[in-house]
Amino acid sequence: MPRQKHCRPEDLFQAIGRRDMWRYWPLLPFKSVEADFSPLEVGPSPTISCDKLAKKLGISRLFLKDDGRNPSASLKDRASNVAVAKALELGFSNIYCASTGNAASSLSCISAAAGLNCYIFVPAATPEAKLSQMLVFGSRVLRIDASYDEVFDLSMSIGEEKGWYCRNSAINPYLLEGKKTATFELFEALNWNVPDYILVSAGDGTILSSVYKAIMDLLDYGLISRSPVVLGVQGENSSAIADTYDSGFPFEPIDQTTQCVADSINVGKPRDVIKACSYTKQNGGGFIRVSDDEIVAAIYTLARTCGIFSEPAGAAALAGLEKALADGIIGRKASVALLITGNGLKDIRPVAALCKESKVLPPDEKLIKEELK
Amino acid sequence: MPRQKHCRPEDLFQAIGRRDMWRYWPLLPFKSVEADFSPLEVGPSPTISCDKLAKKLGISRLFLKDDGRNPSASLKDRASNVAVAKALELGFSNIYCASTGNAASSLSCISAAAGLNCYIFVPAATPEAKLSQMLVFGSRVLRIDASYDEVFDLSMSIGEEKGWYCRNSAINPYLLEGKKTATFELFEALNWNVPDYILVSAGDGTILSSVYKAIMDLLDYGLISRSPVVLGVQGENSSAIADTYDSGFPFEPIDQTTQCVADSINVGKPRDVIKACSYTKQNGGGFIRVSDDEIVAAIYTLARTCGIFSEPAGAAALAGLEKALADGIIGRKASVALLITGNGLKDIRPVAALCKESKVLPPDEKLIKEELK
Repeated sequence: MPRQKHCRPEDLFQAIGRRDMWRYWPLLPFKSVEADFSPLEVGPSPTISCDKLAKKLGISRLFLKDDGRNPSASLKDRASNVAVAKALELGFSNIYCASTGNAASSLSCISAAAGLNCYIFVPAATPEAKLSQMLVFGSRVLRIDASYDEVFDLSMSIGEEKGWYCRNSAINPYLLEGKKTATFELFEALNWNVPDYILVSAGDGTILSSVYKAIMDLLDYGLISRSPVVLGVQGENSSAIADTYDSGFPFEPIDQTTQCVADSINVGKPRDVIKACSYTKQNGGGFIRVSDDEIVAAIYTLARTCGIFSEPAGAAALAGLEKALADGIIGRKASVALLITGNGLKDIRPVAALCKESKVLPPDEKLIKEELK
Repeated sequence: MPRQKHCRPEDLFQAIGRRDMWRYWPLLPFKSVEADFSPLEVGPSPTISCDKLAKKLGISRLFLKDDGRNPSASLKDRASNVAVAKALELGFSNIYCASTGNAASSLSCISAAAGLNCYIFVPAATPEAKLSQMLVFGSRVLRIDASYDEVFDLSMSIGEEKGWYCRNSAINPYLLEGKKTATFELFEALNWNVPDYILVSAGDGTILSSVYKAIMDLLDYGLISRSPVVLGVQGENSSAIADTYDSGFPFEPIDQTTQCVADSINVGKPRDVIKACSYTKQNGGGFIRVSDDEIVAAIYTLARTCGIFSEPAGAAALAGLEKALADGIIGRKASVALLITGNGLKDIRPVAALCKESKVLPPDEKLIKEELK
């Protein structure tokens, strides 16, 4: 398809008989899309306008892109979908990745549907629900007693020697292209109106970069006329990208030992740090750091106000918004979109205390009524 | 809207600016639908054609309606959505239900989004992930040391006295109407072509009844011209509906003490047993009983062949299909649709053994390569 400015969305996203992310194939790295690449539907995830929470926060509009509604319950399915399609296109029958958990459960899911053998390298501490997914989907799971950063290096060495197709962040250039479809869907749901801000948490920096890539694509094709300000949210003790960005151009990665309640963004050696920082500089974005307590509080706020149970990394975007509002970085009249990157069922540890505190009552009507007083 | 035969789907499901289950409002018990009843999107869930599994089973086509992709990750969201909308329409600010887990986590989710106070009565043994959902969504959760059947009776007594709106199976007549939208979506995705069989697991019998109700509606409006055979799947030690059905007309409920790995269908005193049996008789359906082992095996088959991680009650439908094929109840040329009623992340206990068996390796490349041999 020839590159053109100011085209109509319907020309660009022509029907290929699917409603999922493959409908954006003219902007994806495939000459054509086999409609049966993957029978699973990745996207379209809902874009929810939550007026109650917007009012509570004192902003004009709040949009939540709920990517926990994907097949393996995270945004990573968009990347895995493209990686698996590419592996099939190139004739591979084996694929691998290192992951904090979501990329691995996602790749396991999409590979199982496509019939690829999947090899997974994860830290031993990966949440049980995500580990269950990988194992149930039949991946060969290598749980390694090491950090994500070490596991990543081990996977690269072994995967290359074995000649498997690599779905590792920042190594595989197509992941970004898959992930950008979340932002395409967001803008399409907003009828190509641009919110003032988009906030998304950042671990390796690939999802953050994908938001910028989507915006640049849409500007390029004239589908939107201005860019929102994009803010990456990191844990205050897991802020390697933000720290690198703050150290100034030319960016030199600052690695660190990290701790963050959100395992998906607990990354000390982010693989897409240079891209994320360059895109941020180029587009006038920025970074916000949030604490574990702020992330957990945001899980409850999202659930109780909007009915969305987000995994910690998803709720971090809301924690970032709250902090940006408190610090005056975002003004009170702004319209804001948050990328909710995964479902809370994937890691219930941060809210496990609630279950423990929850009292078991005897089947005694009088007692239960007392309890309700 | 006047009742009419052979109308066009586009007349019936006219746009109200939503793509979710509310688009079927002319067939739902509301005079009009406020587009902002609930900002969450319930449906449209994917209908996946899994050719690999169809081939493996030796049938012509296999369609999987993946209702684990709903907001709280189960089909119950369709019922909760209608119940909450009805409660709001009638001016209630409190709503309650008794549940084995899914209805409760679902009602908690939809109520939170709509701003209703939600009271939940569950057995103490409810899976942790579902309990987490209820608590995170901010419901008042009453965990009672009793079976679902006892908890149900307690909830009725207390809920009525309090004057709360009731979302209990078989008591609230609208649940069925909400649930039938899953079957509407299935038929719409199949372009109104009718599969030979639909299989779905049965606990209280409401989802099963909703499939029949959907088919009767669609026949009535001329959108389909014949009925598929509907088979309800129950646990072999949790088969109160099947046993009641087998005892013959006029149906007298046969209650039982039950045990089933699928908590959602572990129901000894099914609340919709008469409706489910009557619809089954009227439409020429039937029942199939499956063991716990068959259900767990079906979880793996679904995950590894189709990339869908189903909760046990969802996988029970596949276990039922495998048994029906083995017993010659379903012939080898049939086209079959299965309702996958919830996501596996809601109860990982049946696959927990996999995680326990999964070995943790030291970060030693040589050792990991040995492991891979």
